[in-house]
Amino acid sequence: MAPKRTKGASRRSAVSGGSARRQGWQVDPRQALRVGADIHLASVDQASTPGWTGGEEEAIAYTSSITPLLASLQERLFAAATDGSTRRVLVVAQGLDTAGKGGLARHVMGLVDPQGVRLTAFKAPTVEERSHDFLWRIRAAVPPAGIIGFFDRSHYEDVLVPAVNGELSEASLAARIEQIHDFERELIDSGTALIKVALMVSYDEQGLRLLERVDRPDKHWKYAASDMDTREKWFDYHAVYQRMLRATSFEEAPWYVVPADRKWYARLAVTELVLRTLAELEISWPEAHFDVEAERARVRATISAGALARYDERLASRLDRVAGRIAAVDDAARSLSADEAAGNGNGSGNGKVDGNGSGNGKVRGTPGGSTARSTARSTVGSTSGGAGRREEEQAGRAEETSTGTEERAG
Amino acid sequence: MAPKRTKGASRRSAVSGGSARRQGWQVDPRQALRVGADIHLASVDQASTPGWTGGEEEAIAYTSSITPLLASLQERLFAAATDGSTRRVLVVAQGLDTAGKGGLARHVMGLVDPQGVRLTAFKAPTVEERSHDFLWRIRAAVPPAGIIGFFDRSHYEDVLVPAVNGELSEASLAARIEQIHDFERELIDSGTALIKVALMVSYDEQGLRLLERVDRPDKHWKYAASDMDTREKWFDYHAVYQRMLRATSFEEAPWYVVPADRKWYARLAVTELVLRTLAELEISWPEAHFDVEAERARVRATISAGALARYDERLASRLDRVAGRIAAVDDAARSLSADEAAGNGNGSGNGKVDGNGSGNGKVRGTPGGSTARSTARSTVGSTSGGAGRREEEQAGRAEETSTGTEERAG
Repeated sequence: MAPKRTKGASRRSAVSGGSARRQGWQVDPRQALRVGADIHLASVDQASTPGWTGGEEEAIAYTSSITPLLASLQERLFAAATDGSTRRVLVVAQGLDTAGKGGLARHVMGLVDPQGVRLTAFKAPTVEERSHDFLWRIRAAVPPAGIIGFFDRSHYEDVLVPAVNGELSEASLAARIEQIHDFERELIDSGTALIKVALMVSYDEQGLRLLERVDRPDKHWKYAASDMDTREKWFDYHAVYQRMLRATSFEEAPWYVVPADRKWYARLAVTELVLRTLAELEISWPEAHFDVEAERARVRATISAGALARYDERLASRLDRVAGRIAAVDDAARSLSADEAAGNGNGSGNGKVDGNGSGNGKVRGTPGGSTARSTARSTVGSTSGGAGRREEEQAGRAEETSTGTEERAG
Repeated sequence: MAPKRTKGASRRSAVSGGSARRQGWQVDPRQALRVGADIHLASVDQASTPGWTGGEEEAIAYTSSITPLLASLQERLFAAATDGSTRRVLVVAQGLDTAGKGGLARHVMGLVDPQGVRLTAFKAPTVEERSHDFLWRIRAAVPPAGIIGFFDRSHYEDVLVPAVNGELSEASLAARIEQIHDFERELIDSGTALIKVALMVSYDEQGLRLLERVDRPDKHWKYAASDMDTREKWFDYHAVYQRMLRATSFEEAPWYVVPADRKWYARLAVTELVLRTLAELEISWPEAHFDVEAERARVRATISAGALARYDERLASRLDRVAGRIAAVDDAARSLSADEAAGNGNGSGNGKVDGNGSGNGKVRGTPGGSTARSTARSTVGSTSGGAGRREEEQAGRAEETSTGTEERAG
């Protein structure tokens, strides 16, 4: 296999202009960002980039390179639901004002087919919502099978806000946390992969982002004076956040604390968490539920001889390419899925997030894993999926004629 | 102003490698595709590209160039709703199996922020849905203010399917069409801009797309034997489509017939219809609903001196850029919005769709219009919006440092 690469070596390759494909995650973000029972939010460097040694440019190149794979895995998830699978994914995004939750929705969810995504932004509860249990509106927004859901704020607001405002007794707080546990286990049992991310922005950075909303006329609509009232409760929010994260991070649905002063890092990290979560599901394309030979004959009987001849001429090579892509996605998914196990045998996390690619010395298994990924990325090619796939499609265009009848690779 | 360019000249510039920015729409698609009372579907060339003289490559370049503008107008629509505007947009996409409705959703809606989009795919009605009026489930899916809705199939299926299957008396058919009229006028009155597109695929092309679903293992899930049953009713569907299009295309909510054998053209055309519809709304950024000076002082008091100094150093030039972008979007929107009036004074459409850039001789106003657009496109730059903006953000990165505190241009 590939020789074990040290972190220093890969840094040098970046400096010397090495391809972004040789960069990547030095520590699986499922490990680097996972919250343990002893998380100390005060020790989180919000400007750090745990697990990632490159900069923004490498992050953008990397994201482009994995977008076809992400889109293909998302389409498999969607397709599987038409065949009875109950698997679904739910990203729960928490964070204080300006932490970048909306940007995550736009940039991460924007990478895949909008038909496979359901976004919900939870505001302060309405009168009707307040008349129900706090989980009522949350349950109504749970994505159906095959869909990636994204919650911009969530049931966790119903712990945070009343706790900070002193409206929740200790007993009520404990009861809500218990209800959240039960609810999330129920989600998991019904086929949901949960990805809970807490975006952590620094005090100065939040101030600057608020200031920009005040200074820029095209951002005024995003500012409310109440944002400053919340900012004044900075420490109260962090105290409750820390307590909540500790109490609700469990093996099947851990919290990930994502440093968010660098927007590009937060987006990169959550993209990777979604990608690896999809990979873990190991979803194949559904089997045909019809008689392939019979339907083929039936369809062919209705098409003109000329069009059929042009189609058949290219069929074998096209099917070869499709088979190659399917195998490449399978390989890449297996490799991504295995990465955590190799990098962090017990999956228990360390409760610490720092800026130095935490757990530096022990990047076990990662070099092999990222080699496999690079191979997969370069062969996945033009799979079906979201808007971010545009480049792949452009690359594939050379093989398409302009007659329209030939352009179904897209 | 720019010298009047003839169609021949702009073709030459494409052939000689002229920039895609000098290409574009030779006829406003709102005119070229609009359905009149005398539409003859049999005369539609499904492989044609009405109004557009370039090819796929130019279409992709053009789409990239207008994506920041589209994203910016979408964000203004969204922002205006927070300030009381009731404006919204609804794309109704109809077409037979394989016509490319899903691809439209993915590629056109994928260009803007997924938070500003609501997609609904209507399947055969459920038992509960059938127990209600046919518009019940449609009304429930109407986008709220500020949102671009996309219907993949719609209330028109409730005319098409029963009419083709002989389940609807003449009187019931007429009654449903009347109900649809009333419903759509109600939508328009409540602030909705309706864009109704009928994707028209040729018989051979539909056969080939179905055949590919049978031949490719990753497409099996998209095929059902019933698709062939529907294909066998090809002429029946076209007869009812023609009747329905004639009966329900009216001034405020015309139908657009979109030739769909070339997927890139259908996507390009609907993107342009959405873009021009947004431009027509003439939406500005909401005014501040807070005391800007007071809030500025309040926020600044909470930020460290060093961070403030770095922020202030760049503030003037940043505000200049923002003002420039706002003006550029305003100009581009005005120009796009005016295009139709210049190209087609009475807005009545011609009931014909052909492959030769219909209405060739009379490209009045277009050269000036597209010059204005090109200017706007080149200066709109990194506005906020959808995933397609990624390139713009990359271009803007040079001005961002890696400290995180400086990267809020995105």
